Amino acid sequence: MTKPFNHVAIIGLGLIGGSIGLATQAALPEARVTAFDASEDVRDRARQIGLAHEIMDTPAAAVDGADLVVLCVPVRAMGEAAAALKGALKPDAIISDVGSCKASVAEAITAALPGQTVIPAHPVAGTEHSGPDAGFAELFRNRWCILTPADDAPAAAVGQLSDFWAAMGARVEIMEAKHHDLVLAVTSHVPHLIAYTIVGTASDLEDVTRGEVIKYSAGGFRDFTRIAASDPTMWRDVFLSNKEAVLEVLQRFSEDLSALQRAIRWGDGDTLFDRFTETRAVRRSIIEEGQDDARPDFGRRDHSGAAKDQPPKN
Amino acid sequence: MTKPFNHVAIIGLGLIGGSIGLATQAALPEARVTAFDASEDVRDRARQIGLAHEIMDTPAAAVDGADLVVLCVPVRAMGEAAAALKGALKPDAIISDVGSCKASVAEAITAALPGQTVIPAHPVAGTEHSGPDAGFAELFRNRWCILTPADDAPAAAVGQLSDFWAAMGARVEIMEAKHHDLVLAVTSHVPHLIAYTIVGTASDLEDVTRGEVIKYSAGGFRDFTRIAASDPTMWRDVFLSNKEAVLEVLQRFSEDLSALQRAIRWGDGDTLFDRFTETRAVRRSIIEEGQDDARPDFGRRDHSGAAKDQPPKN
Ligand SMILES: NC(=O)c1ccc[n+]([C@@H]2O[C@H](COP(=O)([O-])OP(=O)(O)OC[C@H]3O[C@@H](n4cnc5c(N)ncnc54)[C@H](OP(=O)(O)O)[C@@H]3O)[C@@H](O)[C@H]2O)c1
Ligand SMILES: NC(=O)c1ccc[n+]([C@@H]2O[C@H](COP(=O)([O-])OP(=O)(O)OC[C@H]3O[C@@H](n4cnc5c(N)ncnc54)[C@H](OP(=O)(O)O)[C@@H]3O)[C@@H](O)[C@H]2O)c1
Repeated sequence: MTKPFNHVAIIGLGLIGGSIGLATQAALPEARVTAFDASEDVRDRARQIGLAHEIMDTPAAAVDGADLVVLCVPVRAMGEAAAALKGALKPDAIISDVGSCKASVAEAITAALPGQTVIPAHPVAGTEHSGPDAGFAELFRNRWCILTPADDAPAAAVGQLSDFWAAMGARVEIMEAKHHDLVLAVTSHVPHLIAYTIVGTASDLEDVTRGEVIKYSAGGFRDFTRIAASDPTMWRDVFLSNKEAVLEVLQRFSEDLSALQRAIRWGDGDTLFDRFTETRAVRRSIIEEGQDDARPDFGRRDHSGAAKDQPPKN
Repeated sequence: MTKPFNHVAIIGLGLIGGSIGLATQAALPEARVTAFDASEDVRDRARQIGLAHEIMDTPAAAVDGADLVVLCVPVRAMGEAAAALKGALKPDAIISDVGSCKASVAEAITAALPGQTVIPAHPVAGTEHSGPDAGFAELFRNRWCILTPADDAPAAAVGQLSDFWAAMGARVEIMEAKHHDLVLAVTSHVPHLIAYTIVGTASDLEDVTRGEVIKYSAGGFRDFTRIAASDPTMWRDVFLSNKEAVLEVLQRFSEDLSALQRAIRWGDGDTLFDRFTETRAVRRSIIEEGQDDARPDFGRRDHSGAAKDQPPKN
């Protein structure tokens, strides 16, 4: 067990920063938690709901004396947020972040804060909500947090940050930044792009009204709308920052979709059946991994509220 | 209020047929419910869990004396299931079904049972599970059920079937079969095809292991795996039976995806931001319509079970 951090500073108090603030206060009661957000409204709200012990009006004041600084701003704001800390940091403070892309973020932070120890991280946990009211202390429990330290990162610092995330309830994994970006392109970035696309396509059809799309969404579409309700700024930044991996996975997806399209066109039921059978195995593994639960519909069985308390069937 | 059915027969006792059996027994205690399924195992199981008052060993015995027969088999088995009832039906029995496509199913049933009153229907409700154990009586509550009667269908029969579905808890809508097939292509069929595709793409990548895909699925991918765990037979049939509308919507989707792909390639953040902003409105409307709930993550906030009983935040 490494030495826990005495003072954690959080920059950006949205869903992720707010959740870290709450989780740190709950899990590390000895640690002081300070924070800053660029928006005055967010700072006010954060004070009301206690996302940190103290919310400062400048980034420099927030990181003063901190051992760990976690940047929780949109991916393309990381460089600027880091630059604002220059001169205000303890020399041995560890700088980390929670950005959804790692290679570009690591580069931006390192360039803005030369000489400082930078250990990028990405907690793979989230909801479609954002802002200071969206956070909750349990967000990271049983979720993975991926650390992408550079080859020359000090092992002690990596160990300290791993323990911090373990204290948040997360399971920690170490990975190369570039590999992280490819894995997340598949498991998160491209799924989001596809969801945004199909929701847009549905809204734009001439022969089907938007009212009809909304009414009959229970057939599968509503899951896509949930994903496509995620924050536009965050996701614009993700796609621009992880361009290469996203485009590579998209290319593969388009080829695979064409193959199924062809099977439909030519009435090739066997190809469809085989493909649909393969994908079930993936679902089973995810449930076994504990990354989801097997209740059909995730409790949406409470179609009228009445069935809410029934035990899961599977 | 029309005369309720005295005797309802169900052919096919999977998720939908089983749910109708349970819901009818609960909502219409005066009605007799009989049923048949092609599989002996399913019939045995259905008897154990009481999906109907009596489970018969032949289709003819199941529909003997019934006023309403509901076919609940895969879309491309509808014609055969209907043909098996020939000669066993009361002349004034109403034949309905629950198939996910309507034009092709209406044609198959009408051809198999000339002279019989056929009123096709589609309850827009489901889960990714199938089989006799998947059913539950509340499945249709507050969900839409779309009836697609032919122009010359007797109004009294349409009214009786509407009341039946209202008794199941559903909200009933009347629509042309062809229009139904286009609407559902958008809200259900194409989303399923896309989900099957991306889960397949992810499983096949060389540089990302399947274990990694599964571990980091919480980033968005797991919602797709749930959809892609749906029954392969059912979905093969849907795509083959609603080919035209599915291919039309797929074409539009591919064009829209290409546009976003181009925006990423050229770093056009404004196009991405605008598109992502538009899609949020659709989500809000679905929640207002009551077709989903606003809790982030649908109760998956119980990352460790502990937060399970917290009230929704939004
Ligand atoms: N949401 C998820 O599911 C998820 C999951 C894992 C990781 N992440 C990553 O976590 C980071 C934050 O995401 P989030 O969902 O928490 O976003 P969020 O709820 O929108 O919060 C971001 C906050 O940062 C503030 N901010 C922006 N630029 C700033 C700056 N230069 N200095 C200080 N504050 C600044 C924003 O203020 P304004 O409102 O004034 O812009 C906003 O309050 C992103 O990098 C994202 O990629 C998100
Ligand atoms: N699942 C959904 O989300 C959903 C939603 C709305 C509508 N639907 C529609 O509802 C229908 C049934 O779907 P489901 O999910 O309930 O499927 P399911 O759980 O797979 O049940 C279908 C049952 O029908 C049996 N069957 C097949 N051919 C038959 C025949 N000729 N005669 C008698 N029984 C036969 C099957 O037996 P075997 O196992 O021996 O094949 C099986 O037990 C499909 O048309 C589907 O499009 C489904």
